[in-house]
Amino acid sequence: MLIVGELINSSRKAMQEAIAGYDAEFVMAVARAQREKGAAYLDINCGTFVGEETARMEWLVDTVQQAVGLPLCLDSPDPAVLAAALRRVKQPKPMINSISGEEGRFTAVLPLVLEYGAKVIALCMDDGGIPKTAGERLLIAERLLKRLTAAGVPQQDVYFDPLVQPVSTSEEAGTAVLQAITAMRESFPQAHCICGLSNISFGLPNRKLLNRVFLLQTQAAGMDGYILDPTDDRLMGALFAGQALLGRDKYCLGYLSAHRKGLYKENG
Amino acid sequence: MLIVGELINSSRKAMQEAIAGYDAEFVMAVARAQREKGAAYLDINCGTFVGEETARMEWLVDTVQQAVGLPLCLDSPDPAVLAAALRRVKQPKPMINSISGEEGRFTAVLPLVLEYGAKVIALCMDDGGIPKTAGERLLIAERLLKRLTAAGVPQQDVYFDPLVQPVSTSEEAGTAVLQAITAMRESFPQAHCICGLSNISFGLPNRKLLNRVFLLQTQAAGMDGYILDPTDDRLMGALFAGQALLGRDKYCLGYLSAHRKGLYKENG
Repeated sequence: MLIVGELINSSRKAMQEAIAGYDAEFVMAVARAQREKGAAYLDINCGTFVGEETARMEWLVDTVQQAVGLPLCLDSPDPAVLAAALRRVKQPKPMINSISGEEGRFTAVLPLVLEYGAKVIALCMDDGGIPKTAGERLLIAERLLKRLTAAGVPQQDVYFDPLVQPVSTSEEAGTAVLQAITAMRESFPQAHCICGLSNISFGLPNRKLLNRVFLLQTQAAGMDGYILDPTDDRLMGALFAGQALLGRDKYCLGYLSAHRKGLYKENG
Repeated sequence: MLIVGELINSSRKAMQEAIAGYDAEFVMAVARAQREKGAAYLDINCGTFVGEETARMEWLVDTVQQAVGLPLCLDSPDPAVLAAALRRVKQPKPMINSISGEEGRFTAVLPLVLEYGAKVIALCMDDGGIPKTAGERLLIAERLLKRLTAAGVPQQDVYFDPLVQPVSTSEEAGTAVLQAITAMRESFPQAHCICGLSNISFGLPNRKLLNRVFLLQTQAAGMDGYILDPTDDRLMGALFAGQALLGRDKYCLGYLSAHRKGLYKENG
């Protein structure tokens, strides 16, 4: 299970302000907190800084690397921003967030994946937009994987993101993703699946509950990576419990260790 | 989704004392509380009263029926106790908990299922004991369903209980049940699956968390009935959220209604 910490993202108000004011201490504290709670990668996104995304990204990458030795997940739709960020990365095996079946993006991002031997998040969408059904997602994933592996990207470095959509706008939004995960893990057993959770609950009350439930549903279907807030104790408690009950945690040692260390606090 | 309230069970200390003292007010209050939180059936079990189980069961059935008009789930391994309870039942379509592939139990309970046109919980076990694997469970279920339907029990009245075992003693305990549910729902689409949850977490800390996670995993696999505590707001919140995200809740109306009515309180 790969946990990518999502908190260093300028779409969050406090982080936006910290980046705007070059508040390195704040950014470094958030980086350390995520590492301590179990993040294996840290997502870095400053997409709200239109026109100066490259400069802000470079500062963020440098700042985070002063605080923690974790590999980074560089998150931008702009290949030039990704290239600038990758040049400053110190840890091996960075992650690129993301490539997709959109022709322009695919062509521009693929050379970066190859040059840096990076893991890559592959969005299940193409120039036709975001798919509705599981079958449409699987078809795009098949095409993406064929092109990526033909170019030399190892299958195990590919993390498919099925693109979670709100269940409030379509009742099938959740099941389409669950079916896509099942099909992708069967079809490409060495590749991975990763997603963010919060889109699923858009427009509904008690979003944290819904996000946690969708984590457990996608995990049971075979999702093996999440971009999430590792400092959310209840979310992480659900994840540890889920791994144990799915038989993916030898002797429940991960669950017991997390419990002992207080990685989550949940008794109710 | 069928919710059977589990609280009227003499293995619970407070209920044991209430039954021992013929405290009808306590029993009736528990019956009402479960109805208000969404139970469709109430389980009635006084198995700890060895030697006087029939008399206690008769009193319980009468008492609960004074409080609520819900159908009952009569819970005893003893066919004579079940027969005595069924004679006093007023609501149509009682549920019998349980029949199994054990020869003596099957032969003794089947006539009661037929006489009362009851729903029946069919334990996936036989004279060989409790199975370990999903395949063993499915095999027993196939044999049970064949005999039950041949005798005239409609498939839709059969609720298979895959028999949840502790994950602390076997890592495969959870996945065996999940695979069995998937296979049973595919093989017998009109029949149902039901289980209790608490066995899964035996021997581990934070049992309520684990039980809730296993509810979500089994629900996603197709479980459509639970014997649970409907007054556990967090458990019920998970169940409502799960139904909505699985597309089993038109326009999320059940989730929204439960939220509005305060059927669960969960904001974290």
